[in-house]
Amino acid sequence: MGNADYVYPSSNVERAHRVAIPPSQPFVKSLKYNLKETFFPDDPLRQFKNQTPSRKFLLGLQHFLPILEWAPRYTFEFLRADIIAGITIASLAIPQGISYAKLANLPPILGLYSSFVPPLVYAMMGSSRDLAVGTVAVASLLTASMLGNEVNANENPKLYLHLAFTATFFAGVFQASLGLLRLGFIVDFLSHATIVGFMAGAATVVCLQQLKGILGLDHFTHATDLVSVMRSVFTQTHQWRWESAVLGCCFLFFLLIARYLSKRRPKFFWISAMGPLTSVVLGSLLVYLTHAERHGVQVIGHLKKGLNPPSFGDLVFVSPHLTTAIKTGIITGVIALAEGIAVGRSFAMFKNYHIDGNKEMIAIGTMNIVGSCTSCHLTTGPFSRSAVNFNAGCKTAVSNIVMALTVMVTLLFLTPLFHYTPLVVLSSIIISAMLGLIDYEAAIHLWNVDKFDFIVCISAYVGVVFGSVEMGLVIAVAISLLRVLLFVARPRTFILGNIPNSIVYRNVEQYPNASTVPGVLILEIEAPIYFANSSYLRERISRWIDEEEDKLKSSLETSLQYVILDMGAVGNIDTSGIGMFEEVKKITDRRGLKLVLANPGSEVIKKLNKSKFIEKIGHEWIFLTVGEAVTACNFMLHTCKPNSMKHDQSDAYNNV
Amino acid sequence: MGNADYVYPSSNVERAHRVAIPPSQPFVKSLKYNLKETFFPDDPLRQFKNQTPSRKFLLGLQHFLPILEWAPRYTFEFLRADIIAGITIASLAIPQGISYAKLANLPPILGLYSSFVPPLVYAMMGSSRDLAVGTVAVASLLTASMLGNEVNANENPKLYLHLAFTATFFAGVFQASLGLLRLGFIVDFLSHATIVGFMAGAATVVCLQQLKGILGLDHFTHATDLVSVMRSVFTQTHQWRWESAVLGCCFLFFLLIARYLSKRRPKFFWISAMGPLTSVVLGSLLVYLTHAERHGVQVIGHLKKGLNPPSFGDLVFVSPHLTTAIKTGIITGVIALAEGIAVGRSFAMFKNYHIDGNKEMIAIGTMNIVGSCTSCHLTTGPFSRSAVNFNAGCKTAVSNIVMALTVMVTLLFLTPLFHYTPLVVLSSIIISAMLGLIDYEAAIHLWNVDKFDFIVCISAYVGVVFGSVEMGLVIAVAISLLRVLLFVARPRTFILGNIPNSIVYRNVEQYPNASTVPGVLILEIEAPIYFANSSYLRERISRWIDEEEDKLKSSLETSLQYVILDMGAVGNIDTSGIGMFEEVKKITDRRGLKLVLANPGSEVIKKLNKSKFIEKIGHEWIFLTVGEAVTACNFMLHTCKPNSMKHDQSDAYNNV
Repeated sequence: MGNADYVYPSSNVERAHRVAIPPSQPFVKSLKYNLKETFFPDDPLRQFKNQTPSRKFLLGLQHFLPILEWAPRYTFEFLRADIIAGITIASLAIPQGISYAKLANLPPILGLYSSFVPPLVYAMMGSSRDLAVGTVAVASLLTASMLGNEVNANENPKLYLHLAFTATFFAGVFQASLGLLRLGFIVDFLSHATIVGFMAGAATVVCLQQLKGILGLDHFTHATDLVSVMRSVFTQTHQWRWESAVLGCCFLFFLLIARYLSKRRPKFFWISAMGPLTSVVLGSLLVYLTHAERHGVQVIGHLKKGLNPPSFGDLVFVSPHLTTAIKTGIITGVIALAEGIAVGRSFAMFKNYHIDGNKEMIAIGTMNIVGSCTSCHLTTGPFSRSAVNFNAGCKTAVSNIVMALTVMVTLLFLTPLFHYTPLVVLSSIIISAMLGLIDYEAAIHLWNVDKFDFIVCISAYVGVVFGSVEMGLVIAVAISLLRVLLFVARPRTFILGNIPNSIVYRNVEQYPNASTVPGVLILEIEAPIYFANSSYLRERISRWIDEEEDKLKSSLETSLQYVILDMGAVGNIDTSGIGMFEEVKKITDRRGLKLVLANPGSEVIKKLNKSKFIEKIGHEWIFLTVGEAVTACNFMLHTCKPNSMKHDQSDAYNNV
Repeated sequence: MGNADYVYPSSNVERAHRVAIPPSQPFVKSLKYNLKETFFPDDPLRQFKNQTPSRKFLLGLQHFLPILEWAPRYTFEFLRADIIAGITIASLAIPQGISYAKLANLPPILGLYSSFVPPLVYAMMGSSRDLAVGTVAVASLLTASMLGNEVNANENPKLYLHLAFTATFFAGVFQASLGLLRLGFIVDFLSHATIVGFMAGAATVVCLQQLKGILGLDHFTHATDLVSVMRSVFTQTHQWRWESAVLGCCFLFFLLIARYLSKRRPKFFWISAMGPLTSVVLGSLLVYLTHAERHGVQVIGHLKKGLNPPSFGDLVFVSPHLTTAIKTGIITGVIALAEGIAVGRSFAMFKNYHIDGNKEMIAIGTMNIVGSCTSCHLTTGPFSRSAVNFNAGCKTAVSNIVMALTVMVTLLFLTPLFHYTPLVVLSSIIISAMLGLIDYEAAIHLWNVDKFDFIVCISAYVGVVFGSVEMGLVIAVAISLLRVLLFVARPRTFILGNIPNSIVYRNVEQYPNASTVPGVLILEIEAPIYFANSSYLRERISRWIDEEEDKLKSSLETSLQYVILDMGAVGNIDTSGIGMFEEVKKITDRRGLKLVLANPGSEVIKKLNKSKFIEKIGHEWIFLTVGEAVTACNFMLHTCKPNSMKHDQSDAYNNV
């Protein structure tokens, strides 16, 4: 087509524009291009171009250790800001760390260990300046529920602990490999709506679990769903401890008030940030002075002094529970990664710098691999702690180093102080943190803007609360994917009409003043034409033709003679799609209609050409724009009959 | 936006056209519309409109029993044609039925039973005039391999038989429910490429299985993969029977010659159609005369006389193997359905009539439910038999009734004739039928037109041949779906340029003579903007901006000032997508660029409006066409500076 001039059939009007068929690219070249777009959309090697080898080496090193990039530019002002932010997040990290370790059914001291080594690793490798490293509630809960199904943490604490380290190790390996293999886009499949619903559901479940601590119960269900928890709570009403409940409610009230004040006046963020540590100090003092631990208020008890012991030897690679550990690692790893990356990106957006998702995955993964060998459980960048870090005015990842050093001092000298800390205070801290994750305003926004996203969000919530954490996640992701598949399986088709005083054709539903062209049906297809929709499109197109003919018959206007398919929005086509076109061509031929294509994209025209469909439809019936196609059809309608025209329409032309 | 006139900022040029925001539809109405498009795209209730109640009842009855529709119009000429076709397919059905029953490790008589009851049911309910009902090789093989994993057919034939009936029952229930629930589109997910690869793989596997019959082996592997079969064949070379092999090769040669002749001259279709029966007669005579059954040639042996015994009581619903039976039923049911519907549609296309997929599913499902209660195994409309039916000139489903009556006569009187039929002849019949299913030309066509479809096809083939039948299917479907997801996850973006002498803007890669507009970057996004691609698109758009700025910097031309996003091909957007736009807006604002949208569709503009993004970007920066957007940008470039413009471009205007 590129080297011949095509004229209208039986006329001498020359075409203004032709649809170009791009030259066929060699298979290897197009494969390379596609692989690059799939795995390297951010073109990470761009900065290495035209550099000396030594400079390339330095850039490569900086790529994996961003600290080398920013450390030379580090100033004293930065240090002051980072020290303040670091101490603030440490005061939050210590009680939260202990709480989340309890939530994961792990020894409380692990919470402190996990706030020491991982932040140091992240400070070297991470590219976010605002992420504060620590354990997260959801991943801790998931660890407890998934490993708990396999090994009872109370009966066999050692095996459970070792499996938790192993799960952390695999989570890290999985996270780092996703980054190394440039598969970071997997995280994108957790949509915004999924995360809102999932987080709210997980927060609800975590709060429910805290009823154990608040009510001072000894025995509690291992299940996380609402029904099991409620049954567990209400079948042992005689075991409830009022001392514990009163203490818990008081601290919860205090924490919520503190958070409310901080929200009203962002300058007072430190009230909320110091809240947990203050609660722990007050609670411990109270118990120490009143000896409430003898009256039904459970306390943390002895915490071992000293830094993280190595735990490399505790990783179990040969065990009947290995599959569970790997599964737990992968699921918690993905969720932790999603949170960490989302948090990093949000703050980077505020401060206008760039976060490389794949690099972050490598950093978070390495941090967990190192963590699993130094007695830490799963860490990432929790939203709450990072927000406090950001509000406290952190400048770089040095705030993580300051936090780690503060925790180190605590580990070396201050652990005995936590002996009398009541568990109920930890429960209050968790609940107050969790309530902030239930973002009902976001859910309302979803309902207003996109009902389908709302359905995804609610399914995730219901799945988590009434089923299990994994189930909620799987349901939400499945529904999200179903939506994408449905978009392709049931693409919308529109009738186009002419916008008055223009040669532009648009959807008549959106533009009610657009007028259809007599005798010409113009259809727009709004998705790639793939196997999943080719049968549907064939049916739908013949239904459009049926309906148009019925309408024209009843209105006694000119009869239908041309069907123009606007292919502008058809991004791609496969062999089933080409088969569909061949069938549509047969259908139109049988009805005495002429099939016309307008504006096919490069991929589509290339494939139509290769499959010889262009020859079947005729080069001269493919147009650059709908406008040109309509002009040609009108020209034909007024000057001559197409070859395959119906009999009963000789007087139809008068109405055109 | 619909009720106010927007003018260019700081100018008085009025806009020619406005982007309309369609009125927000009530949730229930749009849900209803979407459900209708998803489940009733063919609008089956259309013919019921404006009819009397009695007419409606008749139409409803005709909907489920199409025989009521065509029977009154049945003529004597039709009958003559149908009798010829019916006898022809019966001559094929009897030996094929016996062969496929052997393939499924079931008693050979089941093959005859299955050609008696199901065709009668289909003749009443089916809407295809050319489909010939019968058992199929692939489903038989799948039954053998899936049930064989659970129960050994030789050791426990009764249980195996009952499970086969149960699987058939569930296949029927599944097929009918797909039709009743209007979920017929599930079959569409088996793309053309998948079916080509899968069929060829299954044919290869079935041929390999026939080595048992051809070589006269007693013991044979239950696995279907190439490696296991080859090992099984070559570890027992001492067991090979040359008599059997010679006989098999002779008949295979005869059948292939017959098929070749029929292919060359379609008038001689009956040579190929009669081939199997002739082989059976010749083979049986030969064995009877030479007593070859005493020299290593295995024969069918005794076949019980009489019609199908009822088997309703043999269905097992309480059994440890129930899950396997259900799984087998569902998988074989889907595959049989896909073949039956594809075959029905192909011939309907030839003869220009219409097949309703959902109605066909109900017909095929009912046929299998009834079949499972009358000692039949899974039936559908096999391609080979339907092609013979078509070639023999069938007019209606009466040819199926004729075939059933012929089989009935055989069952009542002629079964003893099959006593001496050698198994090796049956193997030859299967092999010759299977070789026709390996459509290497289709695979070459796939390679030429669409490499990805070729990959899907080859994966299905390799999966079936080296793994198992199910594995091949799952791999092929997974890769096909991955392609759809990748299309959405990694949408292509293009730079658009102006086509000379027009106001049309198109992809500069496809139209190399299209010229870009100085100072304006025009990008087209070619997919819906969903959670799965929002991060990618953000990255990709900023990379386009980077690249454009680099290019402009080096060429010392005018600097970049406007980014126009052509949304014509964006079919839909979700909340993650809107979040992406907000981020892109921040990115462009930060770089002092103006973000402009062109031609957003109805869904997109509706959601951008609901989420207040339109207000953020400014109503006046959304245009109906790229052309109008460029005109406005050029106007601004020449007359005044936008508010947020860069400093170093005061002399840039000279180049425009």
